[in-house]
Amino acid sequence: MAGLIEFVPNFSEGRRGETIEALARAARGAEGARLLDYSADRDHNRSVFTLAGSPEGVAGAAIALCRVAAERIDLREHRGEHPRIGASDVFPFVPLRGTGMAECAALARRVGERVWRELGIPVYLYGEAAGRPERRSLPAIRRGGFEGLGAKMLLPEWAPDYGGRAPHPSAGAVAVGARGPLIAFNINLDTPDGGAARAIARKIRASSGGLPACRAIGVVLRERGLSQVSINLTDYRKTSLPVVYEAVKAEAGRLGVSVAGSEIIGLAPARALTDCAAAYLHLEGFDTSRVLEGLE
Amino acid sequence: MAGLIEFVPNFSEGRRGETIEALARAARGAEGARLLDYSADRDHNRSVFTLAGSPEGVAGAAIALCRVAAERIDLREHRGEHPRIGASDVFPFVPLRGTGMAECAALARRVGERVWRELGIPVYLYGEAAGRPERRSLPAIRRGGFEGLGAKMLLPEWAPDYGGRAPHPSAGAVAVGARGPLIAFNINLDTPDGGAARAIARKIRASSGGLPACRAIGVVLRERGLSQVSINLTDYRKTSLPVVYEAVKAEAGRLGVSVAGSEIIGLAPARALTDCAAAYLHLEGFDTSRVLEGLE
Repeated sequence: MAGLIEFVPNFSEGRRGETIEALARAARGAEGARLLDYSADRDHNRSVFTLAGSPEGVAGAAIALCRVAAERIDLREHRGEHPRIGASDVFPFVPLRGTGMAECAALARRVGERVWRELGIPVYLYGEAAGRPERRSLPAIRRGGFEGLGAKMLLPEWAPDYGGRAPHPSAGAVAVGARGPLIAFNINLDTPDGGAARAIARKIRASSGGLPACRAIGVVLRERGLSQVSINLTDYRKTSLPVVYEAVKAEAGRLGVSVAGSEIIGLAPARALTDCAAAYLHLEGFDTSRVLEGLE
Repeated sequence: MAGLIEFVPNFSEGRRGETIEALARAARGAEGARLLDYSADRDHNRSVFTLAGSPEGVAGAAIALCRVAAERIDLREHRGEHPRIGASDVFPFVPLRGTGMAECAALARRVGERVWRELGIPVYLYGEAAGRPERRSLPAIRRGGFEGLGAKMLLPEWAPDYGGRAPHPSAGAVAVGARGPLIAFNINLDTPDGGAARAIARKIRASSGGLPACRAIGVVLRERGLSQVSINLTDYRKTSLPVVYEAVKAEAGRLGVSVAGSEIIGLAPARALTDCAAAYLHLEGFDTSRVLEGLE
């Protein structure tokens, strides 16, 4: 069996169904890759696709998707709750089976080079594909957003890895990288005021001394009349779903708001679910080798 | 890919490591089947093996295992907390992929016939393989245990499906059947007195008007100084792990005892784990199609 790579592109469009379906068609049409899941969020104004395939398959899908996004999304008209720099905002490649991080980083460089050469969109390499230590961090690359990108790209330390010193006028720039599996986990709060969500995000995220391997921002979900702690768990073995959920629930309780629900965006590793069962059911000695569907 | 069947034999031996290892060797040696998991419990004095393979593979494994169990286990000397009628006590076949219940029932009949013909041990067909409605229920077949089996087999309605009207002197009889996936879930209570476990089991089991698709007995775990509600969830879509766990925890609290932990015996379907995450994390719209390892 050839090596399998997961590709989880994020696009700055979560409202116009036509554009989202055009992206889905491009993903389905890619040879050597399969579309596993996609979802869009109107408040974030963002969509997340999950594909898996051979290195060549996901590379082809990345170029096809980036082309559709550049044709259909104009960031000058984009408003949404989530920080972003590009129409195709983030292109992460994740090793699944029979591939390693080095292969994903090399793939990110090849795709990044093609995005610039074939589509004229500048590229920052991030995560395990980063060429400089300060570009390992996606939030650092995205700081300032699309609106601040023109000025940022003129700074000597923010020259892109591929491309000139100016954003693509409508499509911005793309962060292309390699990373381990990540869980995108959003916890919704029963209040339209974003203050509690932001305070909780500050409290729990690793960058402010909170939970390890936890990134979090607080956002308002205007259309749903809720607010949200939007979380990325970059290593669920360090901070599990139950630990971050209980932390948010406890902090919310202190602030007098309650949890309205939660959602996982994209896929989650089986281990995240066995950890959850172990935590809540006081389950001893159960691991992913004992999930029935693991059989081959 | 040929059809895949799960085979989950239960043996009346949970203490003598040599016998358990002899069974494991026989399971590993079976062609066309793979040993996925096995565990033994000293208090139940019982072991549970999980294999998967082709119909012919698991049939061969069943005969090989039944032979080893008959050679090494003498029920006349067996004491343990769990009801049982045989050295090989229960032989369930479960459809996994590319096979259906009818095929598993037919397989159970073929294996049952061979157990009697080749090993001289009488067989009751149960579950979806049962020839009579009252034999669908495993507890009905096992009622009276090995000790009552000689008298029971003389009753006209309890003539075995294969074999004469007397148990094998040391190996008793075997219940061979077909069923859907089942979760064996034990919840341990922090008291060596079995009264609370028995009261809770009575309260939660379907047969006394409790939770649907839930079988339960209360047992004492003498060696661990605990007691246990030993549960079979025969349809986890009707009663989930979180629902039965919270029910037991609440009943235990009412009786002034606390839950010391829990364990799943054998394998569990991925859906049981996504249900658990959904219940405890208030997770919306997440299902097994979004477990990363589901990829093929």
